Amino acid sequence: MATPVPLLKDELDIVIPTIRNLDFLEQWWPYLSPYHLIIVQDGDPTKVIKVPEGYDYELYNRNDINRILGPKASCISFKDSACRCFGFMMSKKKYIFTIDDDCWVAKDPQGKDINAMEQHITNLLTPSTPLFFNTLYDPYRKGADFVRGYPFSMREGVPTAISHGLWLNVPDYDAPTQLVKPAERNTRFVDMVMTIPKGTLFPMCGMNLAFDRTLIGPAMYFGLMGDGQPIGRYDDMWAGWCCKVICDHLGYGVKTGLPYIHHSKASNPFVNLKKEYKGIFWQEEIIPFFQQVQLSRESVTVEQCYIELSKLVREGLNGVDPYFTKLADAMVTWIEAWTEINNSKQPN
Amino acid sequence: MATPVPLLKDELDIVIPTIRNLDFLEQWWPYLSPYHLIIVQDGDPTKVIKVPEGYDYELYNRNDINRILGPKASCISFKDSACRCFGFMMSKKKYIFTIDDDCWVAKDPQGKDINAMEQHITNLLTPSTPLFFNTLYDPYRKGADFVRGYPFSMREGVPTAISHGLWLNVPDYDAPTQLVKPAERNTRFVDMVMTIPKGTLFPMCGMNLAFDRTLIGPAMYFGLMGDGQPIGRYDDMWAGWCCKVICDHLGYGVKTGLPYIHHSKASNPFVNLKKEYKGIFWQEEIIPFFQQVQLSRESVTVEQCYIELSKLVREGLNGVDPYFTKLADAMVTWIEAWTEINNSKQPN
Repeated sequence: MATPVPLLKDELDIVIPTIRNLDFLEQWWPYLSPYHLIIVQDGDPTKVIKVPEGYDYELYNRNDINRILGPKASCISFKDSACRCFGFMMSKKKYIFTIDDDCWVAKDPQGKDINAMEQHITNLLTPSTPLFFNTLYDPYRKGADFVRGYPFSMREGVPTAISHGLWLNVPDYDAPTQLVKPAERNTRFVDMVMTIPKGTLFPMCGMNLAFDRTLIGPAMYFGLMGDGQPIGRYDDMWAGWCCKVICDHLGYGVKTGLPYIHHSKASNPFVNLKKEYKGIFWQEEIIPFFQQVQLSRESVTVEQCYIELSKLVREGLNGVDPYFTKLADAMVTWIEAWTEINNSKQPN
Repeated sequence: MATPVPLLKDELDIVIPTIRNLDFLEQWWPYLSPYHLIIVQDGDPTKVIKVPEGYDYELYNRNDINRILGPKASCISFKDSACRCFGFMMSKKKYIFTIDDDCWVAKDPQGKDINAMEQHITNLLTPSTPLFFNTLYDPYRKGADFVRGYPFSMREGVPTAISHGLWLNVPDYDAPTQLVKPAERNTRFVDMVMTIPKGTLFPMCGMNLAFDRTLIGPAMYFGLMGDGQPIGRYDDMWAGWCCKVICDHLGYGVKTGLPYIHHSKASNPFVNLKKEYKGIFWQEEIIPFFQQVQLSRESVTVEQCYIELSKLVREGLNGVDPYFTKLADAMVTWIEAWTEINNSKQPN
């Protein structure tokens, strides 16, 4: 019997930010081994990261980032998993799946291992429906369809830019919730994928995330976090707010729901509180800001949208903290670096 | 052992539109018998509708509606389940659960009977979160919470006005989808309740629906359908569009998802097509109309919102078909009748 060819084998890279040996990839072998990995090594560049034998990968440490980007390396965070976006920039593929190194293969309610990669690919290759809510959720899924009252003109849907997967076991809670509910575990398997409606923001988690680089890549910037910055653990949130606003503007879809991964370890809530606490205040102003952002008709590419957004951030959020001026600068640097790297790429 | 007192026993009415004997209530006995029923008999008023023994009910046929409302009875549809809204008007209770007579008790994946009433009540008594999307869905559910990145100022939520339940077995498809997929059955139990985000419309189905009369009752008008009207099967859709726009304006929430009922019988797709076909065209203009509706700050009650909406319908949809002028008139009549009936009520 011939082995089935893995979906999108030559069109998808897996991006992993890490500071430790990637033993977790052993469990993922059946699902991830066909794909190319881009490992972004955070922290001490002299440390050697072990990757399970047989995986095809490239690895970048801080020295590599500095060498490749020169002064523009300032836009890539250090000592924070936000550095993963450097991997997005370096990829030559159409699709990205990014996963954290404390995420394991989850089981469905029947006890069967979940192929997260396959589900993300299905999500990305089927359209989204951001313009009207379908009460049976993903209308393109087997056994489902659009319900009575769904406008026929909207049933083609729009291209899907982002597939946001979820987590069984340790949920993605903020530090205060972790402190209050240290023992809470997510055991509810919700058998569902849905499009997040146009105009609605969501908290995008970077732990189990896939996207189409050609549709939204330049907006997948994880901001300035970690070393030398006043904030951490808002890298994926930042990317999520920016991406959603741009997807809504350009007519792309964002899906959330399946696939689940098994998130093994709750991070230290005290450390998290220290990283997060400014964000807890700031998000009260940032989210209303993003809820009212209107991009102009002139912005027709992701890069143009992102540059326009950087200007709006500079004007609109500078009053929250001078950090946002620095972030707006970094957004521009990121787009410059993205453009430079991606224009110079030779096809594989 | 004391029998537990049923939730909201004296605060909830069950409204059932029907043309036949209500044998289906026998199966529902464990869940529905503690509550008062309001039966709206459609069609021939001389026919006798049998209700299983032991149920406490009041029943209205067309003669009753004409007698009670006089000339204003023109706003209540005849030969269409849209007549159910007369029951909403007559109720003296805070909450309504309305269900169709071809809906049965569904089973969860463990084979256990689902208490739909209990789930609707839970949905209505816990807040909604329309302002920001929570990726673990209903944050008030046991074992769930708000995820990282959810603004703390929004975690109190808003009052829930509507609980929209779903259907296993026969899905709520339109005639064209029924014709194309005659054998499709919904077998996917999605263990989830969520708030439909602010600004997003949805196709509200009246088959398995609960709401808070005090919050949204006057907007639960099912329009002019059936006998003498050019359209059918859009009664609940109409109510859903109006209610959602008003809930968004007044800051109330709409939930969808659990509970499931078992929908037994697909209605005849040819008959349905005849009823629906104008709606299939019209909804292409009606939905964009409702998507851009802005109610004024002066409209602070549901009645005021509904009257304002009737004016917008008259102006905005008259170009689609003269029917909408008649519908706008009926919307005003409905509010007049609602006000008259509800002001004259003596508390039970």
